[in-house]
Amino acid sequence: MSEKIGILAIGHGSRLPYNNQVVTEIAGMIAKKHPEYVVKAGFMEMSTPSVEEALLSFEGTHVSTIVAVPVFLASGVHITKDIPAILKLDPEKNQGSIEMNGQQVKILYGKPLGSDELIADLIFKRALEVL
Amino acid sequence: MSEKIGILAIGHGSRLPYNNQVVTEIAGMIAKKHPEYVVKAGFMEMSTPSVEEALLSFEGTHVSTIVAVPVFLASGVHITKDIPAILKLDPEKNQGSIEMNGQQVKILYGKPLGSDELIADLIFKRALEVL
Repeated sequence: MSEKIGILAIGHGSRLPYNNQVVTEIAGMIAKKHPEYVVKAGFMEMSTPSVEEALLSFEGTHVSTIVAVPVFLASGVHITKDIPAILKLDPEKNQGSIEMNGQQVKILYGKPLGSDELIADLIFKRALEVL
Repeated sequence: MSEKIGILAIGHGSRLPYNNQVVTEIAGMIAKKHPEYVVKAGFMEMSTPSVEEALLSFEGTHVSTIVAVPVFLASGVHITKDIPAILKLDPEKNQGSIEMNGQQVKILYGKPLGSDELIADLIFKRALEVL
């Protein structure tokens, strides 16, 4: 039996609906494209579900590992301090774990979007849309 | 002679180097991939060049149109109010113009990244990187 993996897309959250919508839609796209993964979205502040609530929602899905990926453009204090604190990551390993159904589920932490050709392609696409 | 087009990638800007670096690198990637376009980066606040400085730096490039694209994940007040104000866009048309070398250069305004398969693919890639 192969390991079941969870992906937690973490958004900043906002009083306005836009950030929540984008992060939730992206999580939906990943889930649709990769049905073998359990994909959830959670928010650092202001929007729901919170990161903690989203983590707990993996209960019953039998994932053995959850990869938390910040849906943020660039690094910054939220990425280096706030989210690791919420996820209770070991600062040396940048990893953590959470007990679910009496088992330890490993938490890994991915990098934000950053500078990548996929973003460059999307910005170029957004330019062509209005030309 | 075909029209020469400018792309202005607009970042939020930050006291930390990360946002500046990502937006500048993305502009560089677009420029490399699409050498027929003139690509510049500019920042709303805290980082340089400012959006105004970046706009003026198209002087002498002979672009007839500049497409400003916000390198922001989602819409919000910066996208709907602050950047259009800096670009002096006509609120009805969401377009503007700037005089360069005695000619009117049109300014168009693109959408932010938003929810797109390219972002979903990148988040999935970021997850696989740490698995």
